[in-house]
Amino acid sequence: MRVSQLFAPTLRETPAEAEVISHQLMLRAGFIRKAAGGIYSYLPLAWRVLKKIETIVREEMNAKGGQELAMPIIQPAEMWQETGRWSVYGDEMFRLKDRHNRNFCLGPTHEEMITTLVRGEVRSYRQLPLMLYQVQNKYRDEIRPRFGLMRGREFIMKDLYSFDRDEAGLDRSYNKMYDAYSRIFTRCGLTFRAVEADSGAIGGSGSHEFMVLAESGEAAIIYCGSCDYAANVEKAELYPMTTQAEESMPMTEKDTPGTKSIADLSQFLGISPEKTIKTLAYRTDTGTIVLALVRGDHEVNEIKLLNKVGCLQLDMANEEAILNVLQSSAGYIGPVGLGDKKDIIIVADGTVMKMYNAVCGANKQDKHYINVNPVRDFKPSIVADIRLIQENDPCPRCGEPVKTARGIEVGQVFKLFTKYSTSLQATFIGEDGKEKPMVMGCYGVGVSRTMAAAVEQNYDQNGIIWPVPIAPYHAVVVPVNSKDEAQMALAEKIYGELNAKGVEATFDDRNERPGVKFKDADLIGYPLKITVGPKAINENLIEVKVRRTGETLYFGPTDYLDGIKELLAKL
Amino acid sequence: MRVSQLFAPTLRETPAEAEVISHQLMLRAGFIRKAAGGIYSYLPLAWRVLKKIETIVREEMNAKGGQELAMPIIQPAEMWQETGRWSVYGDEMFRLKDRHNRNFCLGPTHEEMITTLVRGEVRSYRQLPLMLYQVQNKYRDEIRPRFGLMRGREFIMKDLYSFDRDEAGLDRSYNKMYDAYSRIFTRCGLTFRAVEADSGAIGGSGSHEFMVLAESGEAAIIYCGSCDYAANVEKAELYPMTTQAEESMPMTEKDTPGTKSIADLSQFLGISPEKTIKTLAYRTDTGTIVLALVRGDHEVNEIKLLNKVGCLQLDMANEEAILNVLQSSAGYIGPVGLGDKKDIIIVADGTVMKMYNAVCGANKQDKHYINVNPVRDFKPSIVADIRLIQENDPCPRCGEPVKTARGIEVGQVFKLFTKYSTSLQATFIGEDGKEKPMVMGCYGVGVSRTMAAAVEQNYDQNGIIWPVPIAPYHAVVVPVNSKDEAQMALAEKIYGELNAKGVEATFDDRNERPGVKFKDADLIGYPLKITVGPKAINENLIEVKVRRTGETLYFGPTDYLDGIKELLAKL
Repeated sequence: MRVSQLFAPTLRETPAEAEVISHQLMLRAGFIRKAAGGIYSYLPLAWRVLKKIETIVREEMNAKGGQELAMPIIQPAEMWQETGRWSVYGDEMFRLKDRHNRNFCLGPTHEEMITTLVRGEVRSYRQLPLMLYQVQNKYRDEIRPRFGLMRGREFIMKDLYSFDRDEAGLDRSYNKMYDAYSRIFTRCGLTFRAVEADSGAIGGSGSHEFMVLAESGEAAIIYCGSCDYAANVEKAELYPMTTQAEESMPMTEKDTPGTKSIADLSQFLGISPEKTIKTLAYRTDTGTIVLALVRGDHEVNEIKLLNKVGCLQLDMANEEAILNVLQSSAGYIGPVGLGDKKDIIIVADGTVMKMYNAVCGANKQDKHYINVNPVRDFKPSIVADIRLIQENDPCPRCGEPVKTARGIEVGQVFKLFTKYSTSLQATFIGEDGKEKPMVMGCYGVGVSRTMAAAVEQNYDQNGIIWPVPIAPYHAVVVPVNSKDEAQMALAEKIYGELNAKGVEATFDDRNERPGVKFKDADLIGYPLKITVGPKAINENLIEVKVRRTGETLYFGPTDYLDGIKELLAKL
Repeated sequence: MRVSQLFAPTLRETPAEAEVISHQLMLRAGFIRKAAGGIYSYLPLAWRVLKKIETIVREEMNAKGGQELAMPIIQPAEMWQETGRWSVYGDEMFRLKDRHNRNFCLGPTHEEMITTLVRGEVRSYRQLPLMLYQVQNKYRDEIRPRFGLMRGREFIMKDLYSFDRDEAGLDRSYNKMYDAYSRIFTRCGLTFRAVEADSGAIGGSGSHEFMVLAESGEAAIIYCGSCDYAANVEKAELYPMTTQAEESMPMTEKDTPGTKSIADLSQFLGISPEKTIKTLAYRTDTGTIVLALVRGDHEVNEIKLLNKVGCLQLDMANEEAILNVLQSSAGYIGPVGLGDKKDIIIVADGTVMKMYNAVCGANKQDKHYINVNPVRDFKPSIVADIRLIQENDPCPRCGEPVKTARGIEVGQVFKLFTKYSTSLQATFIGEDGKEKPMVMGCYGVGVSRTMAAAVEQNYDQNGIIWPVPIAPYHAVVVPVNSKDEAQMALAEKIYGELNAKGVEATFDDRNERPGVKFKDADLIGYPLKITVGPKAINENLIEVKVRRTGETLYFGPTDYLDGIKELLAKL
């Protein structure tokens, strides 16, 4: 493609609307344009990247026995009503009526559709297992679409659904997909981790998220440097830490004026935060107050807490609620003396239960108890792992200190078990002649999000640095002086030879200053820039600059093709 | 792919809902399943066909300099309001509101979106010409979706838009696309004709439709066997036919009881229908009555009439309207004596004006005028070509008799000129420094419709007969006896070798009777069926049956691969 004809309008300025780097760079480099909030046009360069990601995804899906199909984007309401998700999805679902006033939605996902399709066709165990997938636009009416393609309202997903006879079959399908996903993101040239994940609102249990590591990632993850354990921080398990045993001392109330925070309290008492119990008050969706207890130097993992309490939503209790229920002001609350209150649930982290002579709030302004001993002085309703993992916490698998990182979720694999097959009656006749629900899994790759994540992970101050396997083009050929006929002719020749040999190259044939052409090349992020200037004409030296390393190499007119192919294979 | 694993559920019975053959066969052969009226899932076999058509389309678009991108399916209302099409589209447009109550539609087409996109980026003549395209789901809320994929509410389109500096540029882009479309449908293995078409509601002028010829086609087309003229019957031009000159006789009223039809009238008077004037009454969207006059043996072309009158809609006037305005009952209406009525438009076909001593209704029950002579006895408001072309009418280009055929519209190319660039201010600065609107064209291929049209053109009583270039697979390998290990092993070997050599084959490894496997193979429509039975084991003869011709060939174990490849190349 000649750059003079390529529809890739670059911008000099960073658009004010763009908050994250992938959004800024993809707008500036002419990859995307906004049509409405969270809704974008993919221009030709972006489309080439997306097609490459899709091709890798398809190859890996097919290699595992996945069969591609395409279900409708516009879905009738009835099947969503059968599973109850018509109401669960709320405002996030784009809904519409047809001319006959029938309800439809724009599919945010396709469990209902695929289960309804398969239940009509699969009757015998002989037809299982089955893995069906599609690559398609999905729709979620985000309240605040932002970050460009990272959180859009229209986005491209690959979604595969597996149907098995039993859980052992589901495990095999799940492992195939886990493996395929690892191959997909490796082949895309991305640094990623598969982490244990909470399976969230989609239901079922057993899930991994595939995270592209990037400082701007919305998700916090931990991983072990010694073993291959990795998890979303929300999911990471923790075992109770033991503390040095002490003789229990008598609990006493102590004046602790102006010590609302653990830091102030520790300083006031001259003790380590590890000797204090942090008590946080939450309110459930049904109005119950939940007190969460963790050691003073720990944080509460609200997802774990929510799952343990078994409610739908959990918010911090406001001062008024704390005053009403505990007769205490915030900053001095604690579990002592609350055991008989029926409207309070006390959830203590396992580590708290192993503390001796600890300090906690006395439910009175400016008062704490000292020498508090769990069980003796308070009895929690629930003892569980509710703390957030932190850097250097012991790995739950091998015990070595864990590390933290930030990631962008680009894929997720889920075991759905029989959640949808039961509610939609997708059954089959087993080898034993009995009717059973199919055992399902679902597996998604955010295709457009993977493109954005690749940019978040691969850029510098000059622009994007595409990994070779998903670069829109491998190289750009830039004649330094577009008025120099010899340079233009040689550049055109190189451009032709590269493409003939499978190196996807553009030719910057524009009548622009070299600076403009070089800047655009860096911004767009071609892995290689091939400069045709006086050196090429006079010394037969073709200059190849590697975008990622800044390295410059020179090749002769006969060996440059092989040199470039070798370079690309190594990058 | 092993057929035991292939998700292609075939049906023994023809579903009652399916009216046309492509719908019936694609349901029965497991290609599609209905999700809602006019909304289908494409199962793996259909998806393979669609991908092959898409690949051919993409290759031809790219060869002409088209650049692929992807615009949103969900489009904000504002740009449609700018061109006025938000209201024009009426109930055919799927509309929805987002959570912030903003109006969107599901794109039925993308002129507004692409013009808005390009106007923001193209400023100079140097950036033109530009050809941008996408392959995408489109949406039209048809009042009566039917005929399966032929008239769906969600369907796959390729839409390309060209932007040029001037009309000469548009002509070049149009011709490139015309050529590309001819290549696409030729490469798909379809028999088609490009016909001159009315450019309809989309606007602009200058258009061709690409019609796949099939008896079930909704469109009537005419073509000349002598020259290459072909047109939609709605579009085909006709020159007035002259009739034998006669001396004008005095007009008189005549009793003609019970002669409401031309046939009855001719019989009653003992004259040829060519001597009568047929008068049809229409009502425009604004309530005006239009009388259309054609010779008794001719039909009115309502599209031509609509264009000539210049109204938006035209319906047959009901009896009440005829009585009110003409004081006549239907069946006896005519143009005589209506010349001074302001609320009636009389449109006469050119041929009518060349008649002598004709017969027409007298606007009185059971009365006609005889010896009516146009101009002397009535004066039409408009004289124009408003008749429908018929078989054996003279070709408007060479005068030879034309033939008729039926076709399925699978593609259309349009010259839009500056319709959208003017209303959406998509301008550029020309070489002369002046600002001008871009000159546009738009070009669509119905991808899913092409698949259905291919079936309408290629089937027999046993099922589909896929043209090789778009067949889901080239061949199926069928062992006759699935319990015979030697047959199964040889079939598996052949299956592996075919795929290794680029022949896309499935292997019917199911434990089914041979009749079931052969029936499914014919129904699905594989171009070749490779049977591995006793002959293959005992005599080393591999049987290859050609689906289209029924021909059976035998190959040896060493030459069958080449033989099959040769066969496929010829088909």
